[in-house]
Amino acid sequence: MSERPRAVVLISGGLDSATTLAIAKDQGYDCYAMSVDYGQRHRVELKSAHWVAESFAVAEHKVVRLGMSGIGGSALTDSGIPVPETQGEGIPSTYVPARNTIFLSIALGWAEVLGARDLFIGVTAVDYSGYPDCRPEYIEAYETLANLGTKAGVEGGRFHIHTPLIDLSKADIIREGMRLGVDYGLTVSCYQADSEGRACGVCDSCRFRAQGFREAGLSDPTRYRDRCPAGD
Amino acid sequence: MSERPRAVVLISGGLDSATTLAIAKDQGYDCYAMSVDYGQRHRVELKSAHWVAESFAVAEHKVVRLGMSGIGGSALTDSGIPVPETQGEGIPSTYVPARNTIFLSIALGWAEVLGARDLFIGVTAVDYSGYPDCRPEYIEAYETLANLGTKAGVEGGRFHIHTPLIDLSKADIIREGMRLGVDYGLTVSCYQADSEGRACGVCDSCRFRAQGFREAGLSDPTRYRDRCPAGD
Repeated sequence: MSERPRAVVLISGGLDSATTLAIAKDQGYDCYAMSVDYGQRHRVELKSAHWVAESFAVAEHKVVRLGMSGIGGSALTDSGIPVPETQGEGIPSTYVPARNTIFLSIALGWAEVLGARDLFIGVTAVDYSGYPDCRPEYIEAYETLANLGTKAGVEGGRFHIHTPLIDLSKADIIREGMRLGVDYGLTVSCYQADSEGRACGVCDSCRFRAQGFREAGLSDPTRYRDRCPAGD
Repeated sequence: MSERPRAVVLISGGLDSATTLAIAKDQGYDCYAMSVDYGQRHRVELKSAHWVAESFAVAEHKVVRLGMSGIGGSALTDSGIPVPETQGEGIPSTYVPARNTIFLSIALGWAEVLGARDLFIGVTAVDYSGYPDCRPEYIEAYETLANLGTKAGVEGGRFHIHTPLIDLSKADIIREGMRLGVDYGLTVSCYQADSEGRACGVCDSCRFRAQGFREAGLSDPTRYRDRCPAGD
């Protein structure tokens, strides 16, 4: 049995969470990857998550099914809401109600069973501009909750929510991931990728990603569907 | 369309959550009931939740499936852990890792979509003795989190987590429920009820329930399987 401390790492199949997994592994954790199948429209995400988990030889990759698709409320789960091509003011329509709260809660339950006290989530400074559940004060509040609401927390263990990307730009994230051997060709960032993982090139997420590779001065392994990469 | 404020009420099929629903309805809320199918061993709970929701004519009863059964860690989901017949010291083995955190998170997501700002959960002073995620400080921390981590919270709405039973004894809960017309014959409290909803009479939950009816001086409609009711 491994003597390294265990960590639960949330992975979505995207660039940020793949980098987060690489960082957790680099910090010496025995990584248990978790993805949530919540009826996301971009199903290829879960395939990518599997490829990413495999590429880092995690101890286990668990996909938890959550029947949230009947709830709607987001362009990412509700086919009645279009995915926006540009980011407007305020919180984007791609915000999924309480998503990180739900994901962290499921990860917390698994961590408690595994005896892990460390959770990793790839929230970023870029998301921070729009999503409320990516801000440092939210993460701090979650950590407080985790330690009050669990057997492990009450009995003296301390949960720690790691957000290694929170202050990094997309370019910084990509540079760090490249240094740690992330194969970004396995990841999908596009909000409306096709079943092969090829990106649309026009949604917010594609634009942030393409811009990140440009700013990092690194070649972009993203596969696009039917047009030139965003911004080119 | 109803002009009453909407509330999401977590119901499990048990006595406490049925009473909580009755209270929410009595307070004038348009009630949206939610149950989570998390692979609980006592499957009849979900049938009872349906009967309870129907008896209070809720606006909607949503059962969200969550594939947690592979995670284990509790006597309530893991068939390898026996259900205890007496309560020992500390946190009982029937504690489900992060259960209320997960349930509240899913309910919060639905509330946000519905435009509801009120969530009801039937945590009690009895549970409080053993479960960390039933204590007032935990509920306060959750409320803080909900307001930091949601679009609605950030944009000025205030979520409120109602715990109308938190200071009530089992007997008080039963008296209140009877006053509000709860049919406790529809509810199942037993941790190992059979598929007809008949109780074992020996688990902690059966004992608390039977004692509650005795202390309230009310007749107990619980159906038992193959022995005299607990404590008789």
